[in-house]
Amino acid sequence: MGETSVQSFEMPAHGGNLFAARQAYPQAPEPWLDLSTGINPYPYPFANPPPESFARLPEQEAIRSLEAAAARAYRTPMTAETIAAPGSQAIINWLPHLVPAKWVGILGFTYCEYAARWAAAGAKVTIARDLAELERQDVVIIVNPNNPDGRLVAAADLHALATALAGSGGLLVVDEAFVDFLEPGASAVPGMPEQGMIVLRSFGKAYGLPGLRLGFAAGPKALAEKLRAAFGPWPVSGVAIAIGSKALLDRAWLADASMRLMAQGLALDNILAAAGFSVAGSNALFRLACHNDAQVWFDHLARNGILVRRFTAHPDWLRFGIAGSDIDISRLSRALKK
Amino acid sequence: MGETSVQSFEMPAHGGNLFAARQAYPQAPEPWLDLSTGINPYPYPFANPPPESFARLPEQEAIRSLEAAAARAYRTPMTAETIAAPGSQAIINWLPHLVPAKWVGILGFTYCEYAARWAAAGAKVTIARDLAELERQDVVIIVNPNNPDGRLVAAADLHALATALAGSGGLLVVDEAFVDFLEPGASAVPGMPEQGMIVLRSFGKAYGLPGLRLGFAAGPKALAEKLRAAFGPWPVSGVAIAIGSKALLDRAWLADASMRLMAQGLALDNILAAAGFSVAGSNALFRLACHNDAQVWFDHLARNGILVRRFTAHPDWLRFGIAGSDIDISRLSRALKK
Repeated sequence: MGETSVQSFEMPAHGGNLFAARQAYPQAPEPWLDLSTGINPYPYPFANPPPESFARLPEQEAIRSLEAAAARAYRTPMTAETIAAPGSQAIINWLPHLVPAKWVGILGFTYCEYAARWAAAGAKVTIARDLAELERQDVVIIVNPNNPDGRLVAAADLHALATALAGSGGLLVVDEAFVDFLEPGASAVPGMPEQGMIVLRSFGKAYGLPGLRLGFAAGPKALAEKLRAAFGPWPVSGVAIAIGSKALLDRAWLADASMRLMAQGLALDNILAAAGFSVAGSNALFRLACHNDAQVWFDHLARNGILVRRFTAHPDWLRFGIAGSDIDISRLSRALKK
Repeated sequence: MGETSVQSFEMPAHGGNLFAARQAYPQAPEPWLDLSTGINPYPYPFANPPPESFARLPEQEAIRSLEAAAARAYRTPMTAETIAAPGSQAIINWLPHLVPAKWVGILGFTYCEYAARWAAAGAKVTIARDLAELERQDVVIIVNPNNPDGRLVAAADLHALATALAGSGGLLVVDEAFVDFLEPGASAVPGMPEQGMIVLRSFGKAYGLPGLRLGFAAGPKALAEKLRAAFGPWPVSGVAIAIGSKALLDRAWLADASMRLMAQGLALDNILAAAGFSVAGSNALFRLACHNDAQVWFDHLARNGILVRRFTAHPDWLRFGIAGSDIDISRLSRALKK
């Protein structure tokens, strides 16, 4: 498939909107089962943060310590810097204001916010299906693994593309919001080149705590400092600092969560297959399922109080988040049998 | 005093940095008494937020409801819109990227971040001491009441200036971070003109919860929508939504906190006077105290584990936050007697 040129976008739609679902399906049974986001259903088990997390301004030292924990967890090389932000979405929003670019290429089909943001900043946005088509852009954006189809570009290929872009002053933005449960070699952060690449990481998705609003960027020091200045002296909340600093160093919890997600993901595969869906892409945190009657299934699931993610541009797709309990799996299975 | 033209700024210093104080004064007794910020020492007494505040993405409806609570508390007129942000500092950081301005005037001496941000964005920044000098700027910034001297410009004068600026497409930015405990007529939000004015409000200072990172802007719908887009679909944390939505509607708590702050402020006035300081400005949340030996006093207080705010440009000034308990007042009093 060839390139698509994009000049304007409406405000993107997102998953997780139970309020709208309740309004559209007022007869659906409560509580709703929200499978419309790619968020870990097992939140990191945190202690209540100390009162100072609320009652004091975050200290610079505590923020640096949080960033050091992230740099260790993500294995940022010494030549790069890791900075904290109030969610990786906040980094997505700032980048077009900090990186001048006329031509922006996005490896599609992917997370809707990038095209909208860069187009709004005046860039000419091209969505391509092939890495080779992206080499002559000022800024290239690759969500890796991709949302919603799980497509994974090898880290070595990303490093090569970044180095090529850096040669003409360009930048590769890699969004690794869904990389945490893949094998260690999947992330482009370790071994990233000194110039030409910035990697975005989401804390909330992998740790099941998106309400905290915590994300990170790892990249060249000059760009990291621009982002640091943009977010100012208190970029994230005291609660995010307290919980994030501990969770990011807890490798045992991450390994355990990974096993649980894998088991629940296999259970999800089975009931999707039984209902006649074909899985077109997957990640530890979601399945992209195809069905000719996907819209009918969306409606049927919603009537049963189960919210999944659909895509205007791909009416045969539904994205299912991982159901966290056997009760939720059974509920989904029953709903998919009718 | 005339105008000062400012072309470049170093990264501003802020209060609240106990880590640096501990490094500079390792022998000081613990715990430190931090009077270096203008934050309410009586945090709003909140219940632990529900698990969904952490484990789910904030819903659009919950954010709109938080903003409605803020609009009610701040009495935003129907012609304006109130939007939530992760701290009013985040709004300060975004404004120069959303409002084109060549000439920016700031009523000085004031909070350091404004000049730094607009100069970094390429504006020619003028700091003036008189409102009349500011009428021909593209953007005018007035911190009201002012930090650190408590100077208050009447709301009617601000409305008139905003209307004059709007006539040539200009904008008046009013930072009301310290207005919450003044009489209701002090805020420029009620009765604000439809165009030409945006007002910033801080939640953390008045409610003693700056670690939450929560602030608001009230202003013309078009500019509010630009800010909304800049902050994206999840501008603040679930914890900030849960606590802020309740606190902003709790007028009884605010009135009670105001009484306590007034009593503690009078106690502070007495011991400052006894130590030979003259109070050059005040607010419910701080006193600006002058002394020829202010730097000596800063050092002496720090050796006693008490941190106050000093100002490079005004070596005879010290800003004291309100000590929240009689124990803290006694400790400060003892330290100021030596």
